[in-house]
Amino acid sequence: MKVKIGQVQMHITEDKDQNLERAGNLIDEAVSKGADIVVLPEMFNCPYKSSFFVEFAEMKGEKTYSFLSKKAEEHKIYLVGGSIPEKTKKNKIYNTAFVFDRNGKQIGRHRKTHLFDIDVKGRQTFKESDTLTPGKSITVVETEFGQVGIMICYDIRFPEFARMTIEQGARMIIVPGAFNMTTGPAHWEMIFRARAVDNQVFMIGTAPARDVENFYVSYGNSIIVSPWGDILNRLDGEEEVMVTEIDLDEITRVREELPVLKQRRTDLYR
Amino acid sequence: MKVKIGQVQMHITEDKDQNLERAGNLIDEAVSKGADIVVLPEMFNCPYKSSFFVEFAEMKGEKTYSFLSKKAEEHKIYLVGGSIPEKTKKNKIYNTAFVFDRNGKQIGRHRKTHLFDIDVKGRQTFKESDTLTPGKSITVVETEFGQVGIMICYDIRFPEFARMTIEQGARMIIVPGAFNMTTGPAHWEMIFRARAVDNQVFMIGTAPARDVENFYVSYGNSIIVSPWGDILNRLDGEEEVMVTEIDLDEITRVREELPVLKQRRTDLYR
Repeated sequence: MKVKIGQVQMHITEDKDQNLERAGNLIDEAVSKGADIVVLPEMFNCPYKSSFFVEFAEMKGEKTYSFLSKKAEEHKIYLVGGSIPEKTKKNKIYNTAFVFDRNGKQIGRHRKTHLFDIDVKGRQTFKESDTLTPGKSITVVETEFGQVGIMICYDIRFPEFARMTIEQGARMIIVPGAFNMTTGPAHWEMIFRARAVDNQVFMIGTAPARDVENFYVSYGNSIIVSPWGDILNRLDGEEEVMVTEIDLDEITRVREELPVLKQRRTDLYR
Repeated sequence: MKVKIGQVQMHITEDKDQNLERAGNLIDEAVSKGADIVVLPEMFNCPYKSSFFVEFAEMKGEKTYSFLSKKAEEHKIYLVGGSIPEKTKKNKIYNTAFVFDRNGKQIGRHRKTHLFDIDVKGRQTFKESDTLTPGKSITVVETEFGQVGIMICYDIRFPEFARMTIEQGARMIIVPGAFNMTTGPAHWEMIFRARAVDNQVFMIGTAPARDVENFYVSYGNSIIVSPWGDILNRLDGEEEVMVTEIDLDEITRVREELPVLKQRRTDLYR
């Protein structure tokens, strides 16, 4: 079974309406190139900075959510709405990916589960937990293309997490993410390839475009990797839409040839 | 704390005595370059082919075991004896790594736990389970440099396994292994880097040299990777000894800067 994946690597500004307009135009472009599933980057409506998470946060059903639902319905596509700062009635803020089907109906919601708190001396520090609350579950959504795992950025650093999504049947894992200019060159490609090969799934990472003047500089490099670990398509730092056709039957072939998933020694693992 | 790791990438022939002699000379060379821990490749005394596993199998204490113990004692080094086909009283054969301390005393034994049964159409097939029995435990040995995890080749494809060794305190994981000319270029480097970065340990892979005329052609490419995922040293396909000084304090630094091991959501993982 073949499916076309559209990935929107976009610039993100301090003007929310401008971000939505830009996302809308780039979604249109992905659709014009035949995408069945379109993926936006992490925090696509909001600059990646703690103070903006608070200022830009919305509740489910509000402006950004409504925009995404309508876009999915308008184009009859699956839409993984990157992520946005999601506010709850209890006034908590999550880093949340809402997922919509071809009718604009929400079919999934992933709240980033592993918050990004790092301190690489003299190079990169960030503390999401200053403002955000972590989610508490893995997310696998059902589509006409089978189960799709959803993770957000830092979640991908935890191999247990990808394993759990494939145990629930995920055949591709979609990851809105924003690595930076320290961790990106060091780890981004390698981690996507490793999760793909270990779990024999397609891995899809979509990042904001690179803005070197920003507080947090996204590495970009949106990527899509096959179950054998081949990089099928990849961007650099610029704003760009990438549409890639993948063949899900490749999963079956790889899992037969190199049957690691059957060969796991679950009798030994704790 | 600094430690010098010696890796012996050697040709392996159908003459066991010649293999031991060659290994001995190359261990001597590693020692002359200052190695504290010397690592031999997988099946260093035996061609990688099922019929030879049966023919070359030895019991603990026999010729190869005794050779390794004496070499460790002679040079006052830690010696990870790659692996050999180990026969038991019940006539089972394991793919086994024996580990010796500076006095030539056995301090560890790892029996390959995940057997290598693959069938990549038209490229690479092998079925270890035709002749071998799988081990049933992870292996972490205690040294003056801290805990050292031991895995053999295919074991490295299972992220759960590396995780379990670091949960037991491993600061480096030593992997005698023989990827081939299909899986090697595709996955070898990436998997070593991924296990290093996910677990923030040094990863050390030692392979047989490449013999293109062999039934099973080893990729070679013995490698050593830092906890940040940097490749510190690496060979190509030729027979060669590589000695690399590593600083174990780097583990502490990386684990502070990018505290993924503390940030694991073990409350969510099954």
